[in-house]
Amino acid sequence: MAVELKDLTKVEENYSKWYNELVVKAGLAENSAVRGCMVIKPYGYAIWEKMQRVLDDMFKATGHENAYFPLFIPKSFFSREASHVEGFAKECAVVTHYRLMNSPEGEGVVVDPSAKLEEELIVRPTSETIIWNTYKNWITSYRDLPILCNQWANVVRWEMRTRLFLRTAEFLWQEGHTAHATREEAIEEAERMIRVYQDFAQNYMGVPVIVGHKSPNERFAGAEDTLTIEALMQDGKALQSGTSHFLGQNFAKAFDVTYATKEGTQEYVWATSWGVSTRLMGALIMAHSDNNGLVLPPKLAPIQVAMVPIYKGEEQLAQMKQRLDEIAAELRAKGISVKVDARDNVRSGFKFAEYELKGVPVRLALGPRDMQNGTIELARRDTLTKEVVSQEGIAERIVALLDEIQANIYKKALDFRNSMITKADTWEEFVDILDNKGGFVEAHWDGTVETEVAIKEATKATIRCIPLDVKEEEGKCIYSGKPSKFRVLFARSY
Amino acid sequence: MAVELKDLTKVEENYSKWYNELVVKAGLAENSAVRGCMVIKPYGYAIWEKMQRVLDDMFKATGHENAYFPLFIPKSFFSREASHVEGFAKECAVVTHYRLMNSPEGEGVVVDPSAKLEEELIVRPTSETIIWNTYKNWITSYRDLPILCNQWANVVRWEMRTRLFLRTAEFLWQEGHTAHATREEAIEEAERMIRVYQDFAQNYMGVPVIVGHKSPNERFAGAEDTLTIEALMQDGKALQSGTSHFLGQNFAKAFDVTYATKEGTQEYVWATSWGVSTRLMGALIMAHSDNNGLVLPPKLAPIQVAMVPIYKGEEQLAQMKQRLDEIAAELRAKGISVKVDARDNVRSGFKFAEYELKGVPVRLALGPRDMQNGTIELARRDTLTKEVVSQEGIAERIVALLDEIQANIYKKALDFRNSMITKADTWEEFVDILDNKGGFVEAHWDGTVETEVAIKEATKATIRCIPLDVKEEEGKCIYSGKPSKFRVLFARSY
Repeated sequence: MAVELKDLTKVEENYSKWYNELVVKAGLAENSAVRGCMVIKPYGYAIWEKMQRVLDDMFKATGHENAYFPLFIPKSFFSREASHVEGFAKECAVVTHYRLMNSPEGEGVVVDPSAKLEEELIVRPTSETIIWNTYKNWITSYRDLPILCNQWANVVRWEMRTRLFLRTAEFLWQEGHTAHATREEAIEEAERMIRVYQDFAQNYMGVPVIVGHKSPNERFAGAEDTLTIEALMQDGKALQSGTSHFLGQNFAKAFDVTYATKEGTQEYVWATSWGVSTRLMGALIMAHSDNNGLVLPPKLAPIQVAMVPIYKGEEQLAQMKQRLDEIAAELRAKGISVKVDARDNVRSGFKFAEYELKGVPVRLALGPRDMQNGTIELARRDTLTKEVVSQEGIAERIVALLDEIQANIYKKALDFRNSMITKADTWEEFVDILDNKGGFVEAHWDGTVETEVAIKEATKATIRCIPLDVKEEEGKCIYSGKPSKFRVLFARSY
Repeated sequence: MAVELKDLTKVEENYSKWYNELVVKAGLAENSAVRGCMVIKPYGYAIWEKMQRVLDDMFKATGHENAYFPLFIPKSFFSREASHVEGFAKECAVVTHYRLMNSPEGEGVVVDPSAKLEEELIVRPTSETIIWNTYKNWITSYRDLPILCNQWANVVRWEMRTRLFLRTAEFLWQEGHTAHATREEAIEEAERMIRVYQDFAQNYMGVPVIVGHKSPNERFAGAEDTLTIEALMQDGKALQSGTSHFLGQNFAKAFDVTYATKEGTQEYVWATSWGVSTRLMGALIMAHSDNNGLVLPPKLAPIQVAMVPIYKGEEQLAQMKQRLDEIAAELRAKGISVKVDARDNVRSGFKFAEYELKGVPVRLALGPRDMQNGTIELARRDTLTKEVVSQEGIAERIVALLDEIQANIYKKALDFRNSMITKADTWEEFVDILDNKGGFVEAHWDGTVETEVAIKEATKATIRCIPLDVKEEEGKCIYSGKPSKFRVLFARSY
C-alpha cells in the first residue's frame, strides 16, 4: 500500500493526534478488529526485534537464561498475594469455556455450555504467580539459587482507554523473574537490571532517563520496592519506560517457596521481577520524531541508509543502480543496513518523503552530475541537512556519521529533558510549571500517601520517582507544608 | 536442582515413558499447574531459541518480514470460512468476561457477571482469520502484492490428551501468511517454504524427512493443498513436523480481499500459510536420543563442548581450570559454545552422566596424566566413544569433529528411516508390517476418502503423504482392490 506522506498533523497543533497518525502512517502499528489489541506491522516489528536482540544480549551478559511459562493462570493463584490481586486480577481476560458448538439455531458457532471450566483461567497480566508456583518445585536448597530467568511473552490487561504502543490490552514484553538466597542479593539484582534498562534507553534508544524509586503508592502490586526509569516526551509529559521490582519474600510466602541454607535451616526465598514492553516503541517515537515523521537512532533503525537514484530514462537508472549497489556493498561490509530504492513507479521526491517519514538516519541521492563528478548527496534525518560529498571513502564517512547521529539524537533529547526539570518551592509555582511549562518538577513532599493522592487529584501530576542520586535538602512539602528532607520528581505522565 | 541421572526408563522397555521422563530429566520442559500447558525450562528453551534463529534467518533470506497480530479472534471470524470453523473453532479457549471482582462471600475473586463481552473472543488456534481481516486493509492493488509476513507466537488448541512438546494446549510456533496476485505464485511460495522446512530438518536437526502432499482428508481446514514434511521416530511412528498450505482464494473470499490488477479488473487474492512449532523439539528428541539421554546435533546444541577436570585437591583443580579456560578460549574463538565445569561439589562421574543426559556433543576431560603429557580425553556423545588426543590443534580437531558428528547423526537417522520404508502389496502384508515392524508402508490406495478412513479405523495408520517424487506405477488399492496409479506412504503417527 502507498505510504501516506501528506496530511500528518503538526506536532505543535495536536501532539496526541500527531502521534496517533505517525504510528499508522509510518507503518509501525494499527488498531485491530479486537478492541484494544494492536497489529504490529513489519516496519514497527523490525524496530522491536532490534530492541529485543540488544536487550536479550544484555540479559545474557548478566547471567540470565530465557524460559517460557504458561499463558493462562488459574484464578485462585491471584488471591494468594493480597496486594497483587488488587493490582492485577481485576481488569483481565477471563477464559471460562473450552469449546464452541454449532448454534442450535444454525447460525455460526456458540459457546458450548457443557464445556465450562471448573476454575476460570486468566490470560496472564504478569507472571509472578505462575512462575513462583513453578519455582516451588525447582528450589530445595541454597545450591539451586540463584535462579535467573527471563521470558519474552505477550500479556493482557483489559485497559479501557488504549493508545497504540503506549497502552494496549495485549502487549509484548519481557519479564525477568529471579530467586535469591538473600535479601541483599535480590536488591542488588533489582538495581543491576534497572541499570541495564538505563543503559539500553540512553545508549540505544537515545532517550535520557532518570533512575529512581517509585513512591509507595506507585509501586508494583506485591513489591517492597519498585525502581523505575522515567523518560520525558517532547510534549513535557513523563513516560515510565521500565521497572525493576524488589519483591521481598512476598511471592515465596504466597507460594510456600523455601530453601535449605548451608546451615540446614529453612528460609523463604527472595525475589525480583523486571520488565520492559512494546511501550518502549512509544517512548522512542515520542522522544525524537518531528513534523516530517520518525527520527530513529541508527542503532535501532531497520534501514540505516536509504539510497535513491535521480535519473532520466531507463539506461541512466540502470547505470545509477549499478553504482549504488557497489556503494551499498561497501556499506554492508561494514555492517550497515542499506536499502537501494530503484523503484521506477514513484518519483524521487516521494521516496525522500517516505524515508523521512520512516526515520531512516541517512539518505544518499545520486544524480547525473554526481555520476560525472564522483560525488553523492548525503542527507541527515536528525538535522535535515544535506551536503554533496565524494563517493570515495563514503563507507568510512557513514560509519562515523551514524555514530555522530546517534550521539546527536541523545544530546538533543538530553538538553531538552534537562531544560524541563524545574524546581518549585510553593504550590503556586508548582501548579504554574505543570500548567504552563510541563516537564519534571522538583519539589518537597512530606512522604505520605495522602499528600501524594491529594496532589494527583488537584493537578493530575504524580511522583514519577525519588531519584537514586537525590540530595539531602531541608524543605517543606509543597502541599502540606510539613518538613521534608529531599525533593522528589513530579510530572504529568502517560 | 540436581539433575536426575538415574532411573531413566530404557528405550526398549517403554518408549513413551522413556520420552516423557527424558524431557523432564534433561531439563527441557515440564507440565504446569494449568492442564495441558507446559513450562519450557531454560535448557529446552535454549534449543528452541537456536531453532528460531536459524529458521528466522531462512525466512528473511527468502524475503519474509515478521509482524505481530492479536492473540484474540472474534468468534464470528471463524464462521466465515466453512471448513476452517469445523477444524479450529471447536476445541478452543473462550474468553467471555473481562473483569473479576471480590467474592460477595469474601473468599477470593469471582467473575464479574456485569463484565460479559458482547462477542466472545477465541484465543488464536491459528491466525488466518484475523490476518486476512487485516490484509483487507493492506491490499488495494497489484502493487501491494505479494505480502510476505511471518509471526512468532503462542497458540492454543484445547487438546484432551497432551504430551510435552508433541501435543500441548498452548504451544509456541511461527506462522507465515502470504498474499499473492496469482495462483501460480502462491503455489510456488507454499513449495518454497516446505523446502525451507526440509532443509532445516535435515541440515540442522539431522532429521531426514519425506516431503509430500497430504491426502484431502488430512489437509489443513481451509486449504486447497497441504504440503508436509514427515519424519520417522525411533519407535517406528511418523511425526508430521511442518506443513505449508496453498489456501487458494478461500480466505480472500471469506474476508472479501480483492486487488486491482494492472489491467484494472478486481480479483481475489491468493494465499498460503505455513508453520512449524515446539513440536519440532519432540522430533529432535525422539529421532536421536538413547538410554543415556539426549543426543543433540551440534548445530542446535546450546553447549557444544563440555570440559571437566579430573583432579585431586584444590591446587590441581586451579591448575586444570586454568588450562581448560585456555582451551575454551581457543574454541570460543572458533565460534564453539563451551562450558568449563569446575564445580567442586559433584564428582566427575556425575558430570559425565549429566552431559550425556543433556546431549552435549563433545566432552573433554583433563586428568593429571594429561597435564603432564599435553593430552586430553575426548568423548563423543553420538557414538559414546572416547580417545586421548593431543591438546595441540584441539580447536581445529573439534571444529572438524562437530561437522562429522552432525553428519553422522543425520546418516544414522537416514539409514534407520530408509530401512523402515517397506512395500506392501496385500492387506495381510500391510497389517503385518504395521504391527510387527512399523515405519512407513508404501502401498497403493484408490484415492477415496472412504478407503482412507476405513484403513485408519482398521489399523490406526493414516496416509502420511503422497511424496512429491512419487513414481507412476500401476497397482491395486491395498484395501478396496480398485486401480491405483502410484503408492502413497502410510504409517501410524504421533
